[in-house]
Amino acid sequence: MKTVKVGICGLGTVGSGTFKLLQDNAADIAGRAGCEIVVGRVGARRDNPDCDTADTPLSRDIFEVARDPEVDILVELIGGTDTALKLVREALVNGKHVVTANKALIAEFGNQLFAEAQQAGLSIAYEAAVAGGIPIIKALREGLAGNRVLWLAGIINGTGNFILSEMRDKGREFSDVLAEAQALGYAEADPTFDVEGIDAAHKLVILASIAFGMPLQFDKVYTEGITQLSTSDVEFAEELGYRIKHLGIARRAEDGIELRVHPTLVPEKRLLANVNGVKNAVLVEGDAVGPTLYYGAGAGAAPTASAVVADVIDLARAIACGQKPLVNALGLEVEQVVEQDILPIEAVHTAWYLRMTAEDKPGVLSEVTRICSEAGISIEALIQKEPEEGETRVPLIILTNRTRESNLVSATAEIEALPSIEGSIMRIRVESLDG
Amino acid sequence: MKTVKVGICGLGTVGSGTFKLLQDNAADIAGRAGCEIVVGRVGARRDNPDCDTADTPLSRDIFEVARDPEVDILVELIGGTDTALKLVREALVNGKHVVTANKALIAEFGNQLFAEAQQAGLSIAYEAAVAGGIPIIKALREGLAGNRVLWLAGIINGTGNFILSEMRDKGREFSDVLAEAQALGYAEADPTFDVEGIDAAHKLVILASIAFGMPLQFDKVYTEGITQLSTSDVEFAEELGYRIKHLGIARRAEDGIELRVHPTLVPEKRLLANVNGVKNAVLVEGDAVGPTLYYGAGAGAAPTASAVVADVIDLARAIACGQKPLVNALGLEVEQVVEQDILPIEAVHTAWYLRMTAEDKPGVLSEVTRICSEAGISIEALIQKEPEEGETRVPLIILTNRTRESNLVSATAEIEALPSIEGSIMRIRVESLDG
Repeated sequence: MKTVKVGICGLGTVGSGTFKLLQDNAADIAGRAGCEIVVGRVGARRDNPDCDTADTPLSRDIFEVARDPEVDILVELIGGTDTALKLVREALVNGKHVVTANKALIAEFGNQLFAEAQQAGLSIAYEAAVAGGIPIIKALREGLAGNRVLWLAGIINGTGNFILSEMRDKGREFSDVLAEAQALGYAEADPTFDVEGIDAAHKLVILASIAFGMPLQFDKVYTEGITQLSTSDVEFAEELGYRIKHLGIARRAEDGIELRVHPTLVPEKRLLANVNGVKNAVLVEGDAVGPTLYYGAGAGAAPTASAVVADVIDLARAIACGQKPLVNALGLEVEQVVEQDILPIEAVHTAWYLRMTAEDKPGVLSEVTRICSEAGISIEALIQKEPEEGETRVPLIILTNRTRESNLVSATAEIEALPSIEGSIMRIRVESLDG
Repeated sequence: MKTVKVGICGLGTVGSGTFKLLQDNAADIAGRAGCEIVVGRVGARRDNPDCDTADTPLSRDIFEVARDPEVDILVELIGGTDTALKLVREALVNGKHVVTANKALIAEFGNQLFAEAQQAGLSIAYEAAVAGGIPIIKALREGLAGNRVLWLAGIINGTGNFILSEMRDKGREFSDVLAEAQALGYAEADPTFDVEGIDAAHKLVILASIAFGMPLQFDKVYTEGITQLSTSDVEFAEELGYRIKHLGIARRAEDGIELRVHPTLVPEKRLLANVNGVKNAVLVEGDAVGPTLYYGAGAGAAPTASAVVADVIDLARAIACGQKPLVNALGLEVEQVVEQDILPIEAVHTAWYLRMTAEDKPGVLSEVTRICSEAGISIEALIQKEPEEGETRVPLIILTNRTRESNLVSATAEIEALPSIEGSIMRIRVESLDG
């Protein structure tokens, strides 16, 4: 049996998880790859006390891994986009295939890297970059290859989903749960990437590029975080039969592609509405297959290593037979990946949840509904409660039908200008996700 | 761009769906395959008025397709195991790769066919044979290749799931829903394959062989249908916080592999419990990735064609590059697929739901609980209702903890022998599916 050598750069959570998985399941993995897969060199600036690399050659200079003539596949697990970019390029220059879990790198530099890899006859595999252990890249790119994908929607940030699940289950406020998530290690000390949707936007861009055969365009994603959500929104949504999820959505609309990350009301019966805690799930609607859903752990050492190792096996299988890996990074040759118009968010059509604070006096509701009606926005559901004891203001919650975003924005501005409406209106998009 | 030619045998629902999908999405498919994919010949005993094969050569003798020197890939969609087996062998003899949606053929003759294909350097692809459009074969065999699979559980028969969903949602009896399913075309005139679990057993065997790297052993599956379920079971399950699903379960137990298809109580919070109607879903627990779930349409022309075409694209991609497809049918070379002990059902451990009819008099409960206690079966939950007006008997429902099946069987036999218990005890297995 042949041996294929892997060089692992980065010995953090995922790096040590990958090292361990390749060892623990070595026999099964060899059977599936048709060759032995051995870690030939590890590159790490410092040791990881939880990972005994024992007899494996170790370089403090990770670039040595990219230049090691023994290494067939470089596994980039250092993160970030600066050194990682240089490292991947160094690997390609040295004729090595690359496996990475780095969503930022792929989302922001994938177009160039994929072109350079194709030129060199090499592969860059990145299953672990989106939704951790869920084999969603393979499913979308190969499993659904006969389909024209119409849309996809995913819970692709575990931290955000954990926070929203806790807010709903325990009625806790955002900031409170965030602090706990940080203590548990689910959220970074600086949680911006997770709670502002940047991490989800990185992943969405990758999924959308495969789905629609277009270049990665991270700067075109509309991104809205979950920091503004209150438990009252979670509760009103519940009352209306919905759950609030932070979704990445890509859709082939009539006049362009929608690319957006934002809190979303989802009907409570949908499987996606029932994905809780740190779990991820992606719903993909193909023209032939209809809706399909992929669920699992979106992060963590072992689940992410599962995806990294799957990529390694795919590459090793080809290397061992002296063949070229056949599946292109985005499912198409670089030359066939074509630019498509991305819709500005103003032009996107969705339904809406609106929560406003109104004075409890006659006529307010009729003014609000008049403005909606004049804007062609019909009201699907409405909640108005009696004021609390001693309170003269009441929350007013409206679910609208689908309307163009620019239309909704101007209508809500008009409503906000009413003297009987206090402060600004909380707006959350609603998606039926019913195919 | 090169052209790869497909021969489609069978122009029924899936055959015409495949023909249509290859035409409708031809440009996208060519991009992903790196070659044009053309239907070079159709073999069908009779025309399908819904499928205009127009300029494609058509043979009434399907074996002509297997012998057509122009055809690179034979797509077997005639069903059954008699002619289909001969056809696939004829295709292999003539040097053609095979794609099939035929679960019975793979489950019953896969071992020999895979060996013959390997010998000939050819592939037999069968994504469409399990769970329709869900790319579960690819996910399990490639996406989770770094894992040791611990267990899997699937709703893999849409007809059965439709019936159970209707029984729960509308309180309808089995026979009533079955009649409707037949009228809707979800169930065959002879529904045995679906409602007795044979179809699910075919699919389970395929999934289990990939998961555990063992030969296909259809005759070893324990199979129990859903015909005995009553709406009262569905309702009592609901009261206990469970839903009843017809699951195919494969598990790596300490002393062997479990292979079983039977009605199962599943906690209502699990995603699998919320898969309704004709949809399919498979939950796979890997040692690294943890639980992952795959959901979608398990049948129908377009969803099944989606899976067939995905296989065709995988093969065409290799053929166009003059390469050999690299992934083995069960994920391993035929020689590495090793026999493993299949546990007899008596040796399987599960929790249980028991429903019995008891006389409404003192001491009955104490006798029943004494028998359980003496058998080491502890009771997790119990429902005993007051008798209906004028009724002297009451239903008694018990949820037990996990116990060996043989133990449960003898304890229930003892309970059935009590004079205060009438008739036989309804027994349904319970699975927590919590990894």
